[in-house]
Amino acid sequence: MDKRLVHSLIDAAAGRTVSDLAVLNAEVVDVYNRTTFRSNVYVKNGYIVGFDSSLKAKETFDAKGKYLIPSLIDAHCHIESSHLSPSEFSDAVVPCGTGTVIADPHEICNVTGLDGMRYMLSASEGIPLSVFLMFPSCVPATPFEHSGAVLNAEEIEQFIGNERVLGLGEMMNYPGVSGADESVLNKLDCAYRRKKNIDGHAPSIFGSALDSYAVAGISTDHECETPEEARDKIRKGMYVMLREGTACRNVLQLLPAVDSRNFSRFLFCTDDRQPQSITEDGHINYGVSLAIRNGLDPLLAISMATLNAALCYKLDDRGAVAPGKRADFFLSSSIEDGIKAEEVFLEGKLVAEYGKIIKKARHTEPVNVSGKMDVKGFSEKSLVLKLKGKHVRVIDIIPGGVVTGNGDAFVNLDKDGNWVHDPDADILKLAVVERHHGTGLSALSLIRGYGMKHGAVATSIAHDSHNIIVIGDNDRDMALAVEKLVEIGGGITMFKDGKELGTHVLEIAGLMTDSALDEVTSTLDSMHTIAEKELGVNEGIDPFMTLSFMALPVIPALKLTDSGLFDVASFGFVDNTID
Amino acid sequence: MDKRLVHSLIDAAAGRTVSDLAVLNAEVVDVYNRTTFRSNVYVKNGYIVGFDSSLKAKETFDAKGKYLIPSLIDAHCHIESSHLSPSEFSDAVVPCGTGTVIADPHEICNVTGLDGMRYMLSASEGIPLSVFLMFPSCVPATPFEHSGAVLNAEEIEQFIGNERVLGLGEMMNYPGVSGADESVLNKLDCAYRRKKNIDGHAPSIFGSALDSYAVAGISTDHECETPEEARDKIRKGMYVMLREGTACRNVLQLLPAVDSRNFSRFLFCTDDRQPQSITEDGHINYGVSLAIRNGLDPLLAISMATLNAALCYKLDDRGAVAPGKRADFFLSSSIEDGIKAEEVFLEGKLVAEYGKIIKKARHTEPVNVSGKMDVKGFSEKSLVLKLKGKHVRVIDIIPGGVVTGNGDAFVNLDKDGNWVHDPDADILKLAVVERHHGTGLSALSLIRGYGMKHGAVATSIAHDSHNIIVIGDNDRDMALAVEKLVEIGGGITMFKDGKELGTHVLEIAGLMTDSALDEVTSTLDSMHTIAEKELGVNEGIDPFMTLSFMALPVIPALKLTDSGLFDVASFGFVDNTID
Repeated sequence: MDKRLVHSLIDAAAGRTVSDLAVLNAEVVDVYNRTTFRSNVYVKNGYIVGFDSSLKAKETFDAKGKYLIPSLIDAHCHIESSHLSPSEFSDAVVPCGTGTVIADPHEICNVTGLDGMRYMLSASEGIPLSVFLMFPSCVPATPFEHSGAVLNAEEIEQFIGNERVLGLGEMMNYPGVSGADESVLNKLDCAYRRKKNIDGHAPSIFGSALDSYAVAGISTDHECETPEEARDKIRKGMYVMLREGTACRNVLQLLPAVDSRNFSRFLFCTDDRQPQSITEDGHINYGVSLAIRNGLDPLLAISMATLNAALCYKLDDRGAVAPGKRADFFLSSSIEDGIKAEEVFLEGKLVAEYGKIIKKARHTEPVNVSGKMDVKGFSEKSLVLKLKGKHVRVIDIIPGGVVTGNGDAFVNLDKDGNWVHDPDADILKLAVVERHHGTGLSALSLIRGYGMKHGAVATSIAHDSHNIIVIGDNDRDMALAVEKLVEIGGGITMFKDGKELGTHVLEIAGLMTDSALDEVTSTLDSMHTIAEKELGVNEGIDPFMTLSFMALPVIPALKLTDSGLFDVASFGFVDNTID
Repeated sequence: MDKRLVHSLIDAAAGRTVSDLAVLNAEVVDVYNRTTFRSNVYVKNGYIVGFDSSLKAKETFDAKGKYLIPSLIDAHCHIESSHLSPSEFSDAVVPCGTGTVIADPHEICNVTGLDGMRYMLSASEGIPLSVFLMFPSCVPATPFEHSGAVLNAEEIEQFIGNERVLGLGEMMNYPGVSGADESVLNKLDCAYRRKKNIDGHAPSIFGSALDSYAVAGISTDHECETPEEARDKIRKGMYVMLREGTACRNVLQLLPAVDSRNFSRFLFCTDDRQPQSITEDGHINYGVSLAIRNGLDPLLAISMATLNAALCYKLDDRGAVAPGKRADFFLSSSIEDGIKAEEVFLEGKLVAEYGKIIKKARHTEPVNVSGKMDVKGFSEKSLVLKLKGKHVRVIDIIPGGVVTGNGDAFVNLDKDGNWVHDPDADILKLAVVERHHGTGLSALSLIRGYGMKHGAVATSIAHDSHNIIVIGDNDRDMALAVEKLVEIGGGITMFKDGKELGTHVLEIAGLMTDSALDEVTSTLDSMHTIAEKELGVNEGIDPFMTLSFMALPVIPALKLTDSGLFDVASFGFVDNTID
């Protein structure tokens, strides 16, 4: 707010000037009293000025009795998971009723460091969606892999004062906080000194174990697994997020924790939501509707997705339809069985109707975040997996999640002791190739349960360091897939018998694209079909997302990084061969 | 929070170091889930670290199953109304369970300007009670009187950045906001630029009239008169305070507005609470208990008086018993019929037991705020009330409030046309004598309903400009009373037949004293008895507080300032004589 703006709002509210817009006959959702009331809503210079039906307005829009709901706030997301650049992401989620996101650019910063922060800030400036950022607190996520950057307190310090940076992103390093590691405390201190928020990430941590984490002033968590855990985190002063992403979904799990006494401490978030999920089901509106359909009072659900998030992140100018708040809202014919964003207004302008954006968001050319694919010394020969014996460890894919099993198997070796694919066993080769610094590092292991009969699939989305990960039965297709990604600057690709079957280009850091959501979804849909029909990937698993989580060494049980096979339970590297 | 402190808290929470204090067997009030749980509570360096019963502590305190409640927050008060200096105020309200107050030093700043801000900041530093200040937004309160200072945006700018100044105090100038007056906008802008709060004060303003006030980002109101007004202010985004002061009390009036859906938008405050009310009934605990006894869920009531206020004023370090929050709490045997502060802990130290403070607060010598009593050209002759006729206006006292009636009467005049007291009519003379700048200004009028038979009462507490106000039947006693106040630097005094009957010295700005609460109460009690028995003041009215509101020209209907008789309805001065 500033004086001049407020002056104009007061004049309009008092009827001394004409408002820009009047939305007539709306059933306004009052997220403060958690009730509704029938009124006109007047807007001036992008802000709501009041409800006085004697006011005049330049334009009117008849809401015809529809519910007028404040724009939804996604309290925690990674825009990168949508595969979309910020402007395309805006065009994708604004029609879903989302007006504001608190985004943690953890993925792009793992690849491009501060250039990623700069890009995310500039590319999200001046677009219809309000994008606030949390500075990623854990880059790299672990010391067991090579990411594109290392971000410590000195780097945080450069951005934490930015008005659109609301604090420190999900602090995944529970042992570091609870152990009072100096480097972790230095990061937290950047937020303390600016009085900014610190988001949490503490799966399955509750009770006594939680105290030494919450005591550091960590104010949210989006990783609760049970209602008991959620209520305990709330007791410890944290806001708990009901997350409905693509892989991780816990709205239904956590709903029993929400009651009429504690609902003010819950938020909604998407965390990681894939393009297809946005196309098919929506965004935050999906989680809210799911909660409503499963018994949550619609007005409590809406206030959780709006006012609560605004309070948590101290966004005083939004989260409600009230005088002085941004004119970000949407109309929905009903709220009883979920919400629909039929007409969406941001800053008092109609920006989307029935799921379609009216005018595309301003596009920002990616700078210093494109084509980063510094792979050195890689060839087909790098993929030869020499084993000390036939009894080996295998990563067991568990469908529908990001967790794997720590399995074993007996495999065939050639005369040199190299692994040989057995067409009758569902075991494939997995490789992670370092792509940030040309270190020439790569590591190999075996993986079971993917189903592919023949060919290779590679992706440069490989949480959290986003090296290239490739799976295949033969080294030639695998090598071709890796080389293709290097050539195009990142993406997802499939090869079979030396032939490229399909490629999804992710030219921004190998994670995102400036293509629109429908294009991305259509490419991915056809690639999914090819993966299933031509490569034989198991129907029950997502061929690309599953692959993306095989290099994530913070999630159990057995993972592969560019430095080797990692056993999460013992928190160390292990050999492919079992003695 | 800072890094070193957090380091020590984490170590204690994780059990690597010994805590300072363990409160054992407490029924802890969880203001987030609005429930309770049985636990030990561990404290280190003044902060709560956790609930893990395996922790060790240097000292223990057995709560014996009592409720452990976060310290209460008074969301809006004028410390001056207690007649106590900040350190004595701390000793008075801490035993009531109050841990934090948001104080608006409106009174002392009207007398002493920025010296008052400086004094209130320094005198409230390092005392057990946490005192945050709101910079007074309306000094002087009106242009119809002479206060000791004029505070505009330039003055606000000097203090608004202070960590303990949370924003701009109650904006009483509704017409100025709604009319978008430049000088008012300049004041508001000081808060906008620092992202600080702006408290409201808008009695009986709701519906459409409220929009042009709320749109300026005013975030609280403590002047609601009806449940409808309260719910409307909440709808417009304001927190509504349930106030239980001495003269103004609206907890019971507004309680019907509070429900299980909107309770997160209500706070408790005292506004103006006289010393006797604190002694007899308590402080914020009284309002909370009153609400509970009248049907409000005790856990909602407690969360309104703690967490809600912390959220409203963005005091992230308090308002709950949770890891990382200040160890400010008290024990109460029950909560079902109200709360009692039996043992009070601030920053983890036992500071009060059963209403008694254990160690007096650090005292700060008043600087530049004492003995300011610049009265020039005043004598008994100044009190001669010459009238143009016998039909006169009289201020009609209405018992129990601050509102007066605009009455008329026929009075006796001497041969010179001067008013003569009629022992059979309950009409007395009232004078307001300017005391800040030696202007020699004084004004006279007539007042009815005080009951005094013979003598004079004078006080330097006269809202909001705090000139000297004196009432009497004869000029000699009135003059002596005024001269006494000038001599002692302010206070309350009574004279009869040239003899001083009792005096309450308020050496700090003529508003407050460094005497303790019990001394103040005992002085006032005996003076009340004298006023009633020896002067004959009506039993139904407070002889001193009533007088203090007779010079307040923002409250209807007829008031007297140093500049003349003021008719609030026509918002202008009127003559004593009716044509």
